Amino acid sequence: MVKLNPNRFFDPEPGTRNIAAELYESVKKLPIISPHGHVDPKLFSENKPFSNPTELFIIPDHYVFRMLYSQGIALKSLGVPTIDGSAVEKDPRKIWQIFADNFYLFAGTPSGVWLSHELYEVFNVSCELNSENGQKIYDELQEKLNSPEYLPRNLFDSFNIEVISTTDAAEDTLDAHKSIRNSEWNGNVIPSFRPDSVTDLSRSDWKINIQKLESVSGLSITNYSSFLNVLRQRRAFFIENGAVATDHGVLSPYTHLLSDTEAESIFNRAFLGKQNQNDADAFTAHMLMKMAEMSIDDGLVMQIHPGVLRNHNKVIFNKFGSDKGGDIPIQTEYTKNMQEFLNRYGNNPELKVILFTLDENTYSRELAPLAGHYPALKLGPAWWFNDSIEGMTRFREYITETAGFYNTVGFNDDTRAFPSIPARHDVARRVDANFLAGKVARHIIDKKEAEKIIKVLTYDLVKEAYNLV
Amino acid sequence: MVKLNPNRFFDPEPGTRNIAAELYESVKKLPIISPHGHVDPKLFSENKPFSNPTELFIIPDHYVFRMLYSQGIALKSLGVPTIDGSAVEKDPRKIWQIFADNFYLFAGTPSGVWLSHELYEVFNVSCELNSENGQKIYDELQEKLNSPEYLPRNLFDSFNIEVISTTDAAEDTLDAHKSIRNSEWNGNVIPSFRPDSVTDLSRSDWKINIQKLESVSGLSITNYSSFLNVLRQRRAFFIENGAVATDHGVLSPYTHLLSDTEAESIFNRAFLGKQNQNDADAFTAHMLMKMAEMSIDDGLVMQIHPGVLRNHNKVIFNKFGSDKGGDIPIQTEYTKNMQEFLNRYGNNPELKVILFTLDENTYSRELAPLAGHYPALKLGPAWWFNDSIEGMTRFREYITETAGFYNTVGFNDDTRAFPSIPARHDVARRVDANFLAGKVARHIIDKKEAEKIIKVLTYDLVKEAYNLV
Amino acid sequence: MVKLNPNRFFDPEPGTRNIAAELYESVKKLPIISPHGHVDPKLFSENKPFSNPTELFIIPDHYVFRMLYSQGIALKSLGVPTIDGSAVEKDPRKIWQIFADNFYLFAGTPSGVWLSHELYEVFNVSCELNSENGQKIYDELQEKLNSPEYLPRNLFDSFNIEVISTTDAAEDTLDAHKSIRNSEWNGNVIPSFRPDSVTDLSRSDWKINIQKLESVSGLSITNYSSFLNVLRQRRAFFIENGAVATDHGVLSPYTHLLSDTEAESIFNRAFLGKQNQNDADAFTAHMLMKMAEMSIDDGLVMQIHPGVLRNHNKVIFNKFGSDKGGDIPIQTEYTKNMQEFLNRYGNNPELKVILFTLDENTYSRELAPLAGHYPALKLGPAWWFNDSIEGMTRFREYITETAGFYNTVGFNDDTRAFPSIPARHDVARRVDANFLAGKVARHIIDKKEAEKIIKVLTYDLVKEAYNLV
Repeated sequence: MVKLNPNRFFDPEPGTRNIAAELYESVKKLPIISPHGHVDPKLFSENKPFSNPTELFIIPDHYVFRMLYSQGIALKSLGVPTIDGSAVEKDPRKIWQIFADNFYLFAGTPSGVWLSHELYEVFNVSCELNSENGQKIYDELQEKLNSPEYLPRNLFDSFNIEVISTTDAAEDTLDAHKSIRNSEWNGNVIPSFRPDSVTDLSRSDWKINIQKLESVSGLSITNYSSFLNVLRQRRAFFIENGAVATDHGVLSPYTHLLSDTEAESIFNRAFLGKQNQNDADAFTAHMLMKMAEMSIDDGLVMQIHPGVLRNHNKVIFNKFGSDKGGDIPIQTEYTKNMQEFLNRYGNNPELKVILFTLDENTYSRELAPLAGHYPALKLGPAWWFNDSIEGMTRFREYITETAGFYNTVGFNDDTRAFPSIPARHDVARRVDANFLAGKVARHIIDKKEAEKIIKVLTYDLVKEAYNLV
Repeated sequence: MVKLNPNRFFDPEPGTRNIAAELYESVKKLPIISPHGHVDPKLFSENKPFSNPTELFIIPDHYVFRMLYSQGIALKSLGVPTIDGSAVEKDPRKIWQIFADNFYLFAGTPSGVWLSHELYEVFNVSCELNSENGQKIYDELQEKLNSPEYLPRNLFDSFNIEVISTTDAAEDTLDAHKSIRNSEWNGNVIPSFRPDSVTDLSRSDWKINIQKLESVSGLSITNYSSFLNVLRQRRAFFIENGAVATDHGVLSPYTHLLSDTEAESIFNRAFLGKQNQNDADAFTAHMLMKMAEMSIDDGLVMQIHPGVLRNHNKVIFNKFGSDKGGDIPIQTEYTKNMQEFLNRYGNNPELKVILFTLDENTYSRELAPLAGHYPALKLGPAWWFNDSIEGMTRFREYITETAGFYNTVGFNDDTRAFPSIPARHDVARRVDANFLAGKVARHIIDKKEAEKIIKVLTYDLVKEAYNLV
Repeated sequence: MVKLNPNRFFDPEPGTRNIAAELYESVKKLPIISPHGHVDPKLFSENKPFSNPTELFIIPDHYVFRMLYSQGIALKSLGVPTIDGSAVEKDPRKIWQIFADNFYLFAGTPSGVWLSHELYEVFNVSCELNSENGQKIYDELQEKLNSPEYLPRNLFDSFNIEVISTTDAAEDTLDAHKSIRNSEWNGNVIPSFRPDSVTDLSRSDWKINIQKLESVSGLSITNYSSFLNVLRQRRAFFIENGAVATDHGVLSPYTHLLSDTEAESIFNRAFLGKQNQNDADAFTAHMLMKMAEMSIDDGLVMQIHPGVLRNHNKVIFNKFGSDKGGDIPIQTEYTKNMQEFLNRYGNNPELKVILFTLDENTYSRELAPLAGHYPALKLGPAWWFNDSIEGMTRFREYITETAGFYNTVGFNDDTRAFPSIPARHDVARRVDANFLAGKVARHIIDKKEAEKIIKVLTYDLVKEAYNLV
């Protein structure tokens, strides 16, 4: 068996390492709260065994195949399905072997860290993943996947997940969630309301999504005002089904309230298929404002994820679709873009807005000063590319001195890869423990205080921020 | 008594820590030079006892109440005075208790560090500040504030301040400064010339400030040229009263010399209340150029503080006014914006321009390369949100390799909070000692050299940069 | 003799330091591959002794005199030649003494580190450089420069250089390279194709460069299409003479393919001297696309160096010309600017594009995500101002977690200062060893893996990236 070092990721200086280990030990076994992520709820409603290691670890994980692709390995050879259904590699063993041959590429990356945790701690494979051991490990994993212990619900329980939130389109039926709730299983799987598909007028499928929204709500959408009404109804429906939050993926965090007349006429243009990019940008900026208004009414926590240019690589997008590793961050500006929003809603301590970024340059310059002032604003954890040992450490280093610990909201795993959840939470707990240990060792925070804060960061803040208490 | 650890903020690795401690020890007791800050000179001209702990520590300190406000505590409940005079909490003990209850929010922040230094080192309170000890500590502090030892002038002397500069509007009478100079007390309190109130045409009180400027100078301002003359006269007046520097707070460091005709007509439009934002921006860019010209003539060191969007939160601004924690940094560009300025004045080794930033992203990209080339340009220390242990460390890490140590100017405390001055200088000395120790321990700088540099950073550079030698 | 510490630049924590030392030891003596730099090939074709220490260390090194200039030392007094031939200091001993007097300014800078390595390791001078020892060291250096051991070719061999690339204008005759190839000496000195002088239409000498290009190619350039043909011919000529790469210095990495008609008419306007800045920008964006096309055809690796505003200081430029320390980085955007380029060529694993930056803010936000996805894209090492201990460390910290090690290309010294080459490669090896040691000590990478990676970073990646295998 491969054993991961129990003191991994801690500062090698013995004094600091010991403090980190002690702080980590105190929260290691706390339940996992996963308030934002992309696990498919059908995993738990159906509770079917994972078919094979390749389907579990490689094909759905764009972190994995983006790295392989960057080194010249074709997505087809990794079994990533094409949009037009043209042939891709079907043999999971062959794909697994490519992965094993190239596992060294992940040295020093969070994927490498998570995959190691999954292989060696969750699945307890017997030897290191490399070219030579590839097929042997495949066999070991396959055997485990066939056993009841590794069924999704059993993993959920053994991972000690207290609650997990999925992310669901406004037009989703939430059937999987209902089915989980109606089952004898007690796992707490809640939805989260993501209306981008119907608020982003630049999407080619916008009209189709609006029709889906009509269909799922049983209400007709003929204009801006009926559109807002349906959104209100859907939010209520999500809340009934356990939702505590909304989520908004936008290119820019620009916010601006349009007059009803302006909003109405943009919506009408879109309805006729005559919207332009300016319309779409203005409407997105406006809908962030409206969503805050609705959140003040219905209590849903608002999450905003700006700053990524989706599908940068059109060649890959046209052949394989979205979420294939070709999303690239852009520079993001918050101070000016969110001023109108924050002036109107940010002074309301009843509202909770959780803001994320992929632009680390804004941590100390914009986000910490904003969150260290506006009562409604909290900062989400280091996101996506920055959800890594160094990335999370930098988040704490750049944020804490101005915003403190209490304007942050604990950890989000934000993952599609269900078995990576314990790995990701474990890394976050280790990084926070180590960050605090560094402060204790330098006598910036005393030990007693740090013992309190590590629990706050691991468990208390996330429950409070997402109204899960 | 609460004892702060003598090795606080130093690297926990014993070799490095010992070097840091030794370097720090060698400068710990050097006099404080405070060339830029916002302490009210009346403190020293009147030399009245501070009324109570709340008036001293909380009400004037926007670092303190911005954090409390961000956690949903109303400014009214903290006694922050309203513009319209509407009621706010008046009981200092009640306010102090809120502060004590929430002191844990400052863990890991510079305010936490400074306040601890003030409480435990300057005021020697007997126990840790928390909910339970709040009133006891209030009593202890009140007793000390009533004693002669804690009168402003006595604190000034016990802080070992060699010279302190205040920041004063161009239209200020400097009466407090004169009164200090005419007193029997020898404390060296000098003014600094800040003309923003009369150079920023976008201010709603611009015309009023011009009238004040006329009144205080005894000269009338009828056009651009008489405006410049009055500024020259005021600068001379400030110099007579001990000033060594000017200070310029601008949103953007854009610089551009207008023709006299252009400048004249913008000024005239402003005089008639018909200026627009473009006029104001152009005039600010132009006045930075004119101020450099005047500095070449009269020898005042020029300080430029760009990049903060003042009063971002209009709700707070309208109710409580400026400097209430709602100032937020923005992205700042120096290379292009200051090219005209640096081409015209930057090659003049007689001129000294000290540049600050809140945008750390410019440290290695723009500021260090500029300061590592232009003889007139020096870099001010890590400013405002970045005047923190990690922030000052990053300043040295990002600046030193390109600009060296000698294109920086020592430390500025930039504070309104008088009792925080020894705390802030102590932190700066510790951070510099620790930064140098890291270089020594890695054999990048030798010990002997570091012993010289720590004194240069603490004492020599600031005196030289501000012509205080 | 001055001895540099053998563990210099390593983490002082003993465990980490020992791992770093071991990793470094394993690559310390590997041959130097220098695939990008600015050493004059005549050094090796002529193989004349360096005239004196001042000519070798100071006059050609803008890193050195930019720092001295920033402290008010006139370039004239350092012997930097003027454009108009007006008098400058001619006494090399006097200039050397100024350098010795001010050597303390380089404490903590890469120049300080390199110069120390050169003085104490390459030239084995007997005492530390300072005011007192200035003339003595000058004598020692002069004596060595007069000895055969310090002739350029002998230094090349003793530096253990396997191959070095120079950077050469498209219109260069490569006579020096031919002469080296035709000599009995076996040193591998290859050219690199840099067409900026003929692709940047905003240059005042563009037309002259086009004429040189005609003359050297023996072909006439009458329009856009003959221009492209000549470029193809020159690339072939460079390849015949050993070139493996092209290099492109652009202000912005904006890329866009013009139609042939558009390109043709811009070229024609330029030919008539009627181009404007928009023309030049569009043509640069277009030529980056065409160069990628040609690289796909002829196999030259493409290097792109964007983001520096050359000759920011016009006063210095007009008096002393280019490369005098007055080049300042600007903010640079890659995600949007390079989207067209990467969509068209980035999915081609046959093409190699090596991208550099001076804007560290793009490391984690843009460059690592792009290189961690597009197969054609690799990241060049920390460049210019960032080619320093902290700068290279930050490069690894910000890049590795998203792009891994294998989307980088080893080290480039990029220097004009030939004797600094072993110093620069030594620093890079030490920094990489120390970075890896930190990962090993924190159990992120295992020791065995790190032993492999240090060799990959030092030797394997650079050979592979530049097709030198």
